[in-house]
Amino acid sequence: MPSYKAPLDDMRFVLNEVLNVSQLKSLPDFESVDDATINEFLSQTAKLAEDVLFPLNASGDREGCHHDRDAKTVTTPKGFKDAYDQFCAAGLPGFACDPKYGGLGMPIVLNTVLSEMFCSANMAFAMYPGLSHGAYNAVHVYGTDEQKNKYLPKLVTGEWSGTMCLTEPQCGTDLGLIKTRAVKQPDGTYKISGTKIFISSGEHDLTSNILHLVLARIEDPSTPPGIKGISLFLVPKFTGDGTRNGIYCQRIEEKMGIHGNSTCEMGLDNAYGELIGEQHKGMRAMFVMMNEARLGVALQWLSLSEIAYQNGLIYALDRKQGQPIEQKAGDENLSKPAVSIIAHPDVRRELLTVKSQAEAARALIYWVSMQLDIAHKHADEKTRKKAQKTVDLLIPIMKAHFTDNAVDNTNSAMQVFGGHGYIKEHGMEQSNRDARITRLDEGTNGIQALDLIGRKVMKENLLGKYLSIINRDVVEAAKAGVPLRMLCRLLKSAWLRLWFHTYWLRLKAAAGIALSKTGQPKLLARVMQDAGAMSTDYLKLASVVAMGHMWVKMATVAKLRLAENPDTRDFYETKVKTARFYFDRIMPLAAAYSRSICRGSKSTMDISPDSFAHQQTTIAEKSWTKPEKA
Amino acid sequence: MPSYKAPLDDMRFVLNEVLNVSQLKSLPDFESVDDATINEFLSQTAKLAEDVLFPLNASGDREGCHHDRDAKTVTTPKGFKDAYDQFCAAGLPGFACDPKYGGLGMPIVLNTVLSEMFCSANMAFAMYPGLSHGAYNAVHVYGTDEQKNKYLPKLVTGEWSGTMCLTEPQCGTDLGLIKTRAVKQPDGTYKISGTKIFISSGEHDLTSNILHLVLARIEDPSTPPGIKGISLFLVPKFTGDGTRNGIYCQRIEEKMGIHGNSTCEMGLDNAYGELIGEQHKGMRAMFVMMNEARLGVALQWLSLSEIAYQNGLIYALDRKQGQPIEQKAGDENLSKPAVSIIAHPDVRRELLTVKSQAEAARALIYWVSMQLDIAHKHADEKTRKKAQKTVDLLIPIMKAHFTDNAVDNTNSAMQVFGGHGYIKEHGMEQSNRDARITRLDEGTNGIQALDLIGRKVMKENLLGKYLSIINRDVVEAAKAGVPLRMLCRLLKSAWLRLWFHTYWLRLKAAAGIALSKTGQPKLLARVMQDAGAMSTDYLKLASVVAMGHMWVKMATVAKLRLAENPDTRDFYETKVKTARFYFDRIMPLAAAYSRSICRGSKSTMDISPDSFAHQQTTIAEKSWTKPEKA
Repeated sequence: MPSYKAPLDDMRFVLNEVLNVSQLKSLPDFESVDDATINEFLSQTAKLAEDVLFPLNASGDREGCHHDRDAKTVTTPKGFKDAYDQFCAAGLPGFACDPKYGGLGMPIVLNTVLSEMFCSANMAFAMYPGLSHGAYNAVHVYGTDEQKNKYLPKLVTGEWSGTMCLTEPQCGTDLGLIKTRAVKQPDGTYKISGTKIFISSGEHDLTSNILHLVLARIEDPSTPPGIKGISLFLVPKFTGDGTRNGIYCQRIEEKMGIHGNSTCEMGLDNAYGELIGEQHKGMRAMFVMMNEARLGVALQWLSLSEIAYQNGLIYALDRKQGQPIEQKAGDENLSKPAVSIIAHPDVRRELLTVKSQAEAARALIYWVSMQLDIAHKHADEKTRKKAQKTVDLLIPIMKAHFTDNAVDNTNSAMQVFGGHGYIKEHGMEQSNRDARITRLDEGTNGIQALDLIGRKVMKENLLGKYLSIINRDVVEAAKAGVPLRMLCRLLKSAWLRLWFHTYWLRLKAAAGIALSKTGQPKLLARVMQDAGAMSTDYLKLASVVAMGHMWVKMATVAKLRLAENPDTRDFYETKVKTARFYFDRIMPLAAAYSRSICRGSKSTMDISPDSFAHQQTTIAEKSWTKPEKA
Repeated sequence: MPSYKAPLDDMRFVLNEVLNVSQLKSLPDFESVDDATINEFLSQTAKLAEDVLFPLNASGDREGCHHDRDAKTVTTPKGFKDAYDQFCAAGLPGFACDPKYGGLGMPIVLNTVLSEMFCSANMAFAMYPGLSHGAYNAVHVYGTDEQKNKYLPKLVTGEWSGTMCLTEPQCGTDLGLIKTRAVKQPDGTYKISGTKIFISSGEHDLTSNILHLVLARIEDPSTPPGIKGISLFLVPKFTGDGTRNGIYCQRIEEKMGIHGNSTCEMGLDNAYGELIGEQHKGMRAMFVMMNEARLGVALQWLSLSEIAYQNGLIYALDRKQGQPIEQKAGDENLSKPAVSIIAHPDVRRELLTVKSQAEAARALIYWVSMQLDIAHKHADEKTRKKAQKTVDLLIPIMKAHFTDNAVDNTNSAMQVFGGHGYIKEHGMEQSNRDARITRLDEGTNGIQALDLIGRKVMKENLLGKYLSIINRDVVEAAKAGVPLRMLCRLLKSAWLRLWFHTYWLRLKAAAGIALSKTGQPKLLARVMQDAGAMSTDYLKLASVVAMGHMWVKMATVAKLRLAENPDTRDFYETKVKTARFYFDRIMPLAAAYSRSICRGSKSTMDISPDSFAHQQTTIAEKSWTKPEKA
């Protein structure tokens, strides 16, 4: 049976010692936040996650959601409704929400810590309130005062929930292809019709109402084609007077995992809808929901890696098998007593691969969340903008690389279990199946890579600015006299690769643009093709550097603490040792990504679509008697 | 809906043009094998795989196997029994079996080709006859003539099936911990009692009898402890006179995938058993089964990669989304018509990653299968031994690296599908779940890495011999005047890394052994620890080299054919282009593995088992008001 214990010490280490989260206290809205409240929430949430949500994780997976076709209702697994009520009673849905609408107004970074626990304990469950938060953000940023007053208080208490309805059968990534139509009514509201698929939490029995945020095209000759003609609408399940609106779950998808969350196909038939924000500006509003949703997906990675690690470790400490080879002088000693498999170097490698990446990711996700707080609340506009740029840059990196890793990490933990990892009762295979969605949702990881290289690197040079932050931290670590020279050197070497690829690409692009203005578009097309082909390797390179950056920060703090207080040796020494493992065994991947980028796009683009398939050719059918030469 | 079409052209390309399989005709037992028979089997098997087995793949996964606790019977999914009967009627179980016992006596390499098709079409199904083959091999090599005559003919027709019963709840990898006991009876047979877990095809309704090959310890004071006291027994479900023997399925495991195959916990209660081979020499006989089983697992990888690729490609050709960035001059053109996603470089990268590795793996697996034929049948003992050494070396490499890759490749194909990849109806998630077992069964991949580095590299220098084979082929490619200089150079560079790590390790080990003989065991212990920590990276390095070797061979042939016959451009040019992609985008991993190996074992071994867990420490609970310095 799997288990989960919230890693409060590691969380506090990052918050208090690495990120110095107390600096947020200087922001206007956070002055009155106090330690007692924070600690109360941390321990209360840990208890809820461990004792209420986690026990429903396996049963929720087994039972799944039930769709009643006739009643068009969806029932969540046994226990989910009760757990959700406890979740709301604890005030968690409004933890980081605007006090004006009943929220507690706590910093996003602390909300991230709480969310990590929920997702570790029960990812399928955590997606229900997670989606509501996206809806809250869209209304909070783009809604009118009337809309805010009408909808936000109920989202904040958790009485109502929200969804994001973007994807349609014919379009996921390219939302310009959306067919859902909105017809304006004389009273200014809209009637909306169409089909939306893959709607997480689209229909369920946890809340009394569901607010669907729906992308649609206004039926009007003035609506531009493509994504420039998309608007965002709020379509409630029940309208103000309690009427059931024309938006129904048509079926729930049979998926690989996250069975406890209902993934619905939603049909809209002349459903009442209100415009959120300006007409035809739906994509802008969508990105408000999407960006934080992507952060949420990166967080799911961390959560699943954490629980995979915890259980892999318990098994490795408990399971006894033969001696590692260094303790054998040869086959004649094969009958020596068995030892815990954690004595085996390769088992350690699997576990440390998870541990070293999960801890770096925790630091990075918390740091980015803190930047989000600064971006929202800081008095100085320049500081706000700077923080927002860091967030914009790192979100696709974290979403894509971390989630590729989530699958790898849950796989590593399964490996520690041997054949037992494949059996349902140990829970490892569920983490693996649940994790798999994170590589696909809120934009596949390939799309994240294009977002990074297109918008964040080629259009604006956000990575250049981030590289200088890393540089500063490395210099500071050196100044503090912390003996981490080797780590800094290895980070710097990967940093240089990233720097080189960034500037080389931007330089070629600049030349390409200049040439294309003189009627020679070839170079630009080639540069863009190179950018597309290298995008995933580039993103992965950026993320091993970003994680290395966090390890240098964490190891620096740990070294300083060790010097101050030798009583805490074990905890801080383990941090430094884990950092070394990261640089020894994970950082070398930077070389591979860099080399692959250097090889360009030719071999990726060379094969024509027809030739991808196995071709019927003139291959001789004679194998045995070799065909004579013609 | 997924689909499968046997890639006969690619198979024939490898068999006829790359490996020149007709050279086996010179082996004594294969003289009478003819093209007509081979072609008949290839096309008949493709039809069976495509039309009979593949349609049962998704339904078998959904339905799973049913265990009747009272009757202690297991029913396979609907359609499996009928498909199995067709399989037997076609003579497939005995395709590569000894004609003395009714087999067709065909080469193993051709059997491998047929097996690839079965596993692609329906891996859960293919495991039933696959396991029988292991039992056949054990009895064929170690059984007495009486046993052979009694058991082999029924295995050859497929009327009976076989299993391998090794694992017990307390031991998987370390079979020295086996508790199953065998008590010798006056008539020379044994009564065997114990519990075996994870027994694939342990109980089912496909055959009238099941022959279980069971590892157990003879209850006798002379039995040595550990694995030196393990013997192999044949325990039939029904004994000669039709009596139901005391071996029963106690439950079937709930697994992540391969639901169509029954994975049983088998209880033995004074079951009748016959010794196979000598007493206490069970491990030797076990390895006969195990080695070919490992080859089978590597083949499953290829099969699942192939079907993942085929379906990913179909989707990529069909699905329309936005233009790739190189075809956009900026955001203002976002409304251009959508194109097939295969136009996108990153989608191509996903597909080519699968294609370039699967095709190299096919060449390698077929080549190793051919070496097995040579090892079994060649007249010259030296040639036989040399071929066997190549097999011994490459089996753990293929098993481990290919299966890690199987999971990655099915993941890549899922990525091409976007969110649809996570939905059951597209079949991609099933391939992913089915593939996951291959990293775990027949020895986890960590164990394969230890087998490679311990037995195949440090004990014997098998890799050194293999490196010279690669060297010879590279020189030959150069002699043939084929313009593949860049490929050869890149292969040579990775080859050098592998050569360096091999000789460095062997040198240090030799020094360590010398020192330990003078009473200084420290260096040897350290070398063994390094070997353990580097084993997985070393194995991965060896496998990217092995696949690169196959691509140089394939590209050489393709280049020669292109020169001979320009009509076949498309097929052979695609081979050369795919080779280039492999060297551009996969081969760079060699650098990462090599760098990771160079970092040694210190950081892997440094953390004490206790410190692996999150420690309760003195981390401040105060986050908001920063704790004052003591």
